[in-house]
Amino acid sequence: MAKDMGRRGVLAGGLGALAGAGVAPAAFAAEHTGGPAGTGNLVPAGELKGYSLPLSARGTANIVGAPPWHYAGTVVGVEFWTTPEAAARALPAGLTPDPDTAGHGYALFIDWQFAGSDQEYLDPVRSQYAEFLILLDARWQGSPVAWCPFIYVDNDAALARGWFQGFPKKLGSIHQTRAFPVPSEAAPSVAAGGTFAGTASVAGRLLSQAQVTLDHTISTLPALGRPIVNLRHFPRLLAGRYDDPAVHELTMSILDTPRVAECWSGPGKLEFLPVPGEELADLAIQRTGAGFRGSLSYTVTDLKILTGPDAPKS
Amino acid sequence: MAKDMGRRGVLAGGLGALAGAGVAPAAFAAEHTGGPAGTGNLVPAGELKGYSLPLSARGTANIVGAPPWHYAGTVVGVEFWTTPEAAARALPAGLTPDPDTAGHGYALFIDWQFAGSDQEYLDPVRSQYAEFLILLDARWQGSPVAWCPFIYVDNDAALARGWFQGFPKKLGSIHQTRAFPVPSEAAPSVAAGGTFAGTASVAGRLLSQAQVTLDHTISTLPALGRPIVNLRHFPRLLAGRYDDPAVHELTMSILDTPRVAECWSGPGKLEFLPVPGEELADLAIQRTGAGFRGSLSYTVTDLKILTGPDAPKS
Amino acid sequence: MAKDMGRRGVLAGGLGALAGAGVAPAAFAAEHTGGPAGTGNLVPAGELKGYSLPLSARGTANIVGAPPWHYAGTVVGVEFWTTPEAAARALPAGLTPDPDTAGHGYALFIDWQFAGSDQEYLDPVRSQYAEFLILLDARWQGSPVAWCPFIYVDNDAALARGWFQGFPKKLGSIHQTRAFPVPSEAAPSVAAGGTFAGTASVAGRLLSQAQVTLDHTISTLPALGRPIVNLRHFPRLLAGRYDDPAVHELTMSILDTPRVAECWSGPGKLEFLPVPGEELADLAIQRTGAGFRGSLSYTVTDLKILTGPDAPKS
Amino acid sequence: MAKDMGRRGVLAGGLGALAGAGVAPAAFAAEHTGGPAGTGNLVPAGELKGYSLPLSARGTANIVGAPPWHYAGTVVGVEFWTTPEAAARALPAGLTPDPDTAGHGYALFIDWQFAGSDQEYLDPVRSQYAEFLILLDARWQGSPVAWCPFIYVDNDAALARGWFQGFPKKLGSIHQTRAFPVPSEAAPSVAAGGTFAGTASVAGRLLSQAQVTLDHTISTLPALGRPIVNLRHFPRLLAGRYDDPAVHELTMSILDTPRVAECWSGPGKLEFLPVPGEELADLAIQRTGAGFRGSLSYTVTDLKILTGPDAPKS
Repeated sequence: MAKDMGRRGVLAGGLGALAGAGVAPAAFAAEHTGGPAGTGNLVPAGELKGYSLPLSARGTANIVGAPPWHYAGTVVGVEFWTTPEAAARALPAGLTPDPDTAGHGYALFIDWQFAGSDQEYLDPVRSQYAEFLILLDARWQGSPVAWCPFIYVDNDAALARGWFQGFPKKLGSIHQTRAFPVPSEAAPSVAAGGTFAGTASVAGRLLSQAQVTLDHTISTLPALGRPIVNLRHFPRLLAGRYDDPAVHELTMSILDTPRVAECWSGPGKLEFLPVPGEELADLAIQRTGAGFRGSLSYTVTDLKILTGPDAPKS
Repeated sequence: MAKDMGRRGVLAGGLGALAGAGVAPAAFAAEHTGGPAGTGNLVPAGELKGYSLPLSARGTANIVGAPPWHYAGTVVGVEFWTTPEAAARALPAGLTPDPDTAGHGYALFIDWQFAGSDQEYLDPVRSQYAEFLILLDARWQGSPVAWCPFIYVDNDAALARGWFQGFPKKLGSIHQTRAFPVPSEAAPSVAAGGTFAGTASVAGRLLSQAQVTLDHTISTLPALGRPIVNLRHFPRLLAGRYDDPAVHELTMSILDTPRVAECWSGPGKLEFLPVPGEELADLAIQRTGAGFRGSLSYTVTDLKILTGPDAPKS
Repeated sequence: MAKDMGRRGVLAGGLGALAGAGVAPAAFAAEHTGGPAGTGNLVPAGELKGYSLPLSARGTANIVGAPPWHYAGTVVGVEFWTTPEAAARALPAGLTPDPDTAGHGYALFIDWQFAGSDQEYLDPVRSQYAEFLILLDARWQGSPVAWCPFIYVDNDAALARGWFQGFPKKLGSIHQTRAFPVPSEAAPSVAAGGTFAGTASVAGRLLSQAQVTLDHTISTLPALGRPIVNLRHFPRLLAGRYDDPAVHELTMSILDTPRVAECWSGPGKLEFLPVPGEELADLAIQRTGAGFRGSLSYTVTDLKILTGPDAPKS
Repeated sequence: MAKDMGRRGVLAGGLGALAGAGVAPAAFAAEHTGGPAGTGNLVPAGELKGYSLPLSARGTANIVGAPPWHYAGTVVGVEFWTTPEAAARALPAGLTPDPDTAGHGYALFIDWQFAGSDQEYLDPVRSQYAEFLILLDARWQGSPVAWCPFIYVDNDAALARGWFQGFPKKLGSIHQTRAFPVPSEAAPSVAAGGTFAGTASVAGRLLSQAQVTLDHTISTLPALGRPIVNLRHFPRLLAGRYDDPAVHELTMSILDTPRVAECWSGPGKLEFLPVPGEELADLAIQRTGAGFRGSLSYTVTDLKILTGPDAPKS
């Protein structure tokens, strides 16, 4: 039953249109906008160097350097349905519920490794991190998109890159079961019957836990069926203008060179638990669908701006 | 000798003008600008709630709520001199070296507790954090200010509040020796001869360590002698515009209701160590001056913008 | 009501017999046994140096050096009553329920600083830790004692010292509200009406949380009214002898030079939450009594062995 | 050059005698001793349940349950030579230097996953951990063995299992580069030219870092060429008997059902850095040999005791 719903969810996400393993799903489909050359009109001559804070004399201390940002990861995910009302309440202005899949979403636990242009994976303490995120089906100007209401990572550079794209990252503690290339009672097999778990905690409280038992291979990851829309938001601290952010714009993620591998699907279990200061459990789970596990990689170099001053003029 | 230099540094910071213990030093002196009422012209009607990411249905999930932001902390600090050249290289466009105190700065290790309007200190896992920061003497339009080139915290909400003010926070692991109100071989006394240490690590590498041996009480904390100037910076991710940030403005911190207590000074020791991805050790220490230890509290509700579109028209 | 129960609990613990602030309570009362000179009959000549693992060439790498072990800490605690049955099930062989206080115990959250003989508090990352522990009233050969069924710390040296005394320490994440010597909205006052919280998590799940609102000063810490009995246990890994430990002995802690300061009592709140792999919540709380907060220090140099080969011959 | 040395080291370790991939190397060769049925003569009737601390009413709270203990892991390792003198100083009484390979050892960074009998890998926050350890060539009664002078993990259950076997574990922060089954600039390939790094920190100080560039496949992991000997040590806390441990015995690890997979070798780089409270850097690296990377799994159910009361009578 759960698996059937999962298949429907996958199909609804457009997976049926994909020709084969490793093909870019719709999440990767936003075209490059190719903005104008940077005018840098806020940056004075002789400024310190770097892409992000802290700017510095040599430009090597910033929390994140300029793109390209390369990512490789393994995901344990479960699709779920909350009530249409709860899903609608979680959408930002500008997005509308998807009438075809009201209340449908995904919970994803991902073990990531990051690199810029210089083999940053050789400093694993900085370049590895784990992530837990939620995607909810929605519509942007009538087109199916995925909205990310909540996302948690365990690394500051990942948090910063998220903010720059609009992903509303907070710190959390996220773990997932790993597979190993040797047979062992200590690890599930990447094969039918192998069971993988994911857990996410924030501030010492359990926020979500999930399990997936692999059943059959699939050609891509279900949650990548829609382009991801975020709200890039940077507030002002000026007295009287707390509600007048300096940056507030809907964005659409652009993922270059997407690839997937070793994708499996099977029955999934998922829980959201109430935690003070979090609203995830407001997305009360009505039922779960397909679970899945697989690996993915892509590169980020650009962002599509949907609203606000930087959006393309219509 | 070190102590003498320390005193001179304190005097240079304007401490001599302070009438007594607990009086607000110059760091707290930037006047409230009282901006116009928020127009919120980027925020559409019906938007999700919250001051910062993630905006949400109930507005309780954001990493940081709107001010007031109340802080109480205990600081272990040491003043130092790097070369005038190294200090000058670390200044952003718009600030100039202070000709009277070229190369002078402070390293501060602070154990903080935070609250908003609702006794947030009752969730200590979220509201407590440790911070390590550097302040360098500089001039803004001829006036003495302190520039913060580097700062590290161990808490995501503190990182976000920092970014909103312009503090270029990254995550680090910071610790300082504590005092206790019982006599013990396990703790120094807050009295002449008591020695306190601070350490800061990032990505598993030691970045700085310091020691202060208390000698005599002082009326305030030396490092608070100048208002703190930061660079509020939020980049664009648009291809071709990585060097054209969405927000790039010098700011001056405004600290309401500042108070200090139990301030002591004495000889200090300080080291900066080279760490890949950090430029702190470029501020090669030529000599150290006064060490100090004390407690402070203040409230943040506003920020003075010095440059960019939000700066007051001259 | 809660406070009254608390007072009764305090009295039952022997506090009424204490003459004044700072006097050693009964927990500190076990006399030094003064063992015979070490024969070291298991240690071959020319062995590596150190008190604990790893022994090494210079003897400075061991996780914990030999005593003296000096401690200073601040405790937030709440007394509670579970059912007499649950309390009885949690006692080891050799201890019996205390018929006068069946089901009575304490939950304690402590921020500690440790030093050996060489100002180890100057390396705060190693010497500071937080602890959460439970004490249950019991009887040893008819005398009132406190049994520690569960205890968690966030530091490996503290874990090791605990094991050597019989404290059954596991790692956890423990936090408590701090006070500061400056007035602030970010911290409670150490005064009537000040509220302090404690939280303990293990493996990302909340295990316990507590709150205490200070009402009146007290002369010592209630939980120190009885000497603490532990089970020192070190298993064998030999096939067929998993149930035949190498060390299995009841011990009684000996605390030298105990001191307390700034002790307050007032209404307390306490919760135990179910966590997989933990049995704390089996001690279902029937009601809570006095909360308290205060500081303490002591030194450990010895241990009284109650059972097994090292126990004094009767 | 480095690679040649590595090959020689591998051969010296007995790898040449192995018939093919996945065959158990000598580290796994200690025969099961099959001890007598447990007499449990220290454990009173009606005792609390569990294999290790804390014993409890239901026996599910102990930090580690009884074996079997199943392990799967991926290792990044580098062989090295320190001076024969430094290596000799690091050996315990009872072991002698190996005259054929004086000063030879391995540094290993391992990402582990653990399970007992109940799919414990489904709670990844408890069952995953990272480890950094050193092995030094030595002789036990004339036979080649590997001595583990230093080992660090990031998990309390792993620390406890280590102590029960004699591994002298302390907590550290250990990371290694990961591979993913998708091509990506964010990860090295498990193929010639792929470079993997390992780092280990303790108390916020970098203790060791290593890199391996894969060159060719090998049939097993070099470091597993000798059975591992440890010193199982549990001190007394009795005044006057700090030097008279309750348990002090050389042990030899027994690894059941060992398997390896995807083993590669190539040039390696390795550094040991001085850290207060650690003696690793005393093993000054004279030269490095082969680097390697591969996966392994095994099960632990038994331990061979070489010295002390539990050793087989000769």
